[in-house]
Amino acid sequence: MSYKVLDENSVKEYIDKTPQIRKIVLNDDEPIDKLQVSEIGDGNLNYVYTVYNGDRTLIIKQAVPFLRCVGEEYPLDRNRMIIEIEALKREKEIAPAFVPDIYHDSYEMSLVAMQNLNKHKILRGEMINREIFPFLSEHISTFLADTLFYTTDFYLDSATKKDEVKRFINKELCKITEDFIFTHPYEENETNSYSPKLDMSVVKEFRENKEIKKAVAKLRYKFMTEAQALLHGDLHTGSIMLNKEETYVIDPEFAFYGPIGFDVGIYLANLAMSYLSLEDNEEEYKEYVKGMIVDTWELFSKKFKDNMINHEKSQKSLQWDYEGGLEHFESYVDSFIEDIFKDSVGFMACEMFRRTVGLAKVADVAGIEDQDRRAEVEKKVLKKASNLITKSYANIDEVVKEITDE
Amino acid sequence: MSYKVLDENSVKEYIDKTPQIRKIVLNDDEPIDKLQVSEIGDGNLNYVYTVYNGDRTLIIKQAVPFLRCVGEEYPLDRNRMIIEIEALKREKEIAPAFVPDIYHDSYEMSLVAMQNLNKHKILRGEMINREIFPFLSEHISTFLADTLFYTTDFYLDSATKKDEVKRFINKELCKITEDFIFTHPYEENETNSYSPKLDMSVVKEFRENKEIKKAVAKLRYKFMTEAQALLHGDLHTGSIMLNKEETYVIDPEFAFYGPIGFDVGIYLANLAMSYLSLEDNEEEYKEYVKGMIVDTWELFSKKFKDNMINHEKSQKSLQWDYEGGLEHFESYVDSFIEDIFKDSVGFMACEMFRRTVGLAKVADVAGIEDQDRRAEVEKKVLKKASNLITKSYANIDEVVKEITDE
Repeated sequence: MSYKVLDENSVKEYIDKTPQIRKIVLNDDEPIDKLQVSEIGDGNLNYVYTVYNGDRTLIIKQAVPFLRCVGEEYPLDRNRMIIEIEALKREKEIAPAFVPDIYHDSYEMSLVAMQNLNKHKILRGEMINREIFPFLSEHISTFLADTLFYTTDFYLDSATKKDEVKRFINKELCKITEDFIFTHPYEENETNSYSPKLDMSVVKEFRENKEIKKAVAKLRYKFMTEAQALLHGDLHTGSIMLNKEETYVIDPEFAFYGPIGFDVGIYLANLAMSYLSLEDNEEEYKEYVKGMIVDTWELFSKKFKDNMINHEKSQKSLQWDYEGGLEHFESYVDSFIEDIFKDSVGFMACEMFRRTVGLAKVADVAGIEDQDRRAEVEKKVLKKASNLITKSYANIDEVVKEITDE
Repeated sequence: MSYKVLDENSVKEYIDKTPQIRKIVLNDDEPIDKLQVSEIGDGNLNYVYTVYNGDRTLIIKQAVPFLRCVGEEYPLDRNRMIIEIEALKREKEIAPAFVPDIYHDSYEMSLVAMQNLNKHKILRGEMINREIFPFLSEHISTFLADTLFYTTDFYLDSATKKDEVKRFINKELCKITEDFIFTHPYEENETNSYSPKLDMSVVKEFRENKEIKKAVAKLRYKFMTEAQALLHGDLHTGSIMLNKEETYVIDPEFAFYGPIGFDVGIYLANLAMSYLSLEDNEEEYKEYVKGMIVDTWELFSKKFKDNMINHEKSQKSLQWDYEGGLEHFESYVDSFIEDIFKDSVGFMACEMFRRTVGLAKVADVAGIEDQDRRAEVEKKVLKKASNLITKSYANIDEVVKEITDE
């Protein structure tokens, strides 16, 4: 089928002609008019249709050749869906519990049919509603440790890794990150936006601060050159759907081979901004979010290290095969993880800056109705980010202290 | 023409059928039996034919589908010639004075026809003969600063750079470097070889030294993940042909996007090994080689910095466009070059290790006939490399002091 943009009716026809998804939602003898199709309508980039036949359901996500939230005048290659499909499949192989089932995909139609996560909600909204999820940090740290470790040179052989780097080169969406996370927020760019009461002197301050500018330039360069692992590439709290038992990571269209700390840092930044958006008297939820930050890092780093050590033990590579060699390898792993920690804190700061003065905001903060309080929170976010990107921290507790200190 | 391995006769037929090279060595009315063809016979990987008609000359280099120096039992994809052709062309665009003229290439035949550098000799041999080249450091530093800068994200736009990374993924030859420079020399691998009188306790010492093993693992990882610039990939003194006036860099089959410090470090290591091979009484040549090491780094780093600053001045990017912004950018460039310096010293050490205990030796040292003296020089190389990889150095003078101190 050659490419055409689907609508609610043609989605039904498409399902009718595609046996591997028809069988998910329809018995052989059921006609397609039993299907309820509706477009969710909240995507920035894509169209997403939910399809129901009673309890039977799936979603269809289709890329269109422009940036949906802007319109047809902002062209964006719909082949980005190829990256999303392939990243979903890789993540599903590596971390099956945390990735929706994929029923069908089509490069030609730039679409994927997947499990409808209709018993799950978006984490960002749930945090705004002050919901608590007992397994989230356990789950997300496994997702991170496994998708990141099993796509590195530590696990893959050298040739396969290079094929993967090539396959996941993601020019257009990386450019969006390079511009909107690493460039525009640090300059007087017309795409930036500011809340009405924001103290613009703080903005000017970080934009002309030598150490901040140098640190941002280094992190941007790291993002552009360090092909460490297959990243999700956009792991904010809006890319996670969950309930009390289950956690799913969705929307990996920004996936590419990049620095491990980027995924970790983006997620931690969104937790930090949630924390900073809380009111003074929300002690309990504050403690919960603090715990999330600590647990995510501690669990991720422990699991990533375990992956490294267990793999080395099973490989018994000649280079570490001498008395004391495994301890030397362990010390190498520790210093590798220290480097990821530093990178993560840096990327965390970049996300906090751009979510405050860049094009895309986070509802946790931007949704604060009292504009004076919103501006106060934003000022705090910028100050914390300025410290995070220029100071050095020995461990995650020091980072949490930086974020939570009044 | 479908692929076949050429010999001295079929080289003539090939030239006869290929107008763009026929005209280089023959007038229209001259028959091909005027051509003198001979195979140079010293390549590790490829066959190289010189073709003469009196003063008119060219060379033809053809890749065969195995590692020539080992034989047909070591298969090696002849498509490596595609990388070599494309790297030669890129280097020729960027640094035309230092790259031979390319007359013709064929992906199908895995061959390239080039300028015959018959008025030039291989630098390694010339250094063994204690020859002095007044322009070498000036030339090689320009080659490095330009080929490296003009292929980075600093100069190329983000999408073009990513296309280039993809185009230059070089699986087989990178694997050779990963194994023979970064792995085998640091383990008891059967591919290693040792000179008869080498003190093996020194070898065991560095193979089981925690800080050295960690540093090598970091540099290996850097080599495998940091896609900074299009490297030559094998820039030892055997890859340079020159005379008193001109300098050419040849054989870029190992080209790929990697860390800038790798090209710089490999070259400096070969100079350092030349230095260490000299006899006590060769004061004058010692001073000359010391000067080469200092000049190469100083000139390279100055030219690379100038490229960065001049490009930024012509771009006037918004992010540095504020009072003091250009000084901030300059400070960023300085710290970027400091990082390249550290990387270069690390890679330099790796090359010194592997050229002493790995498969491939350098004639400067391996050619020392007195085996006791050879072993003494090798021991010194290993000791110096052990220091270079674990200590830190503020500048090139400190590195030179490390190499030259008795």
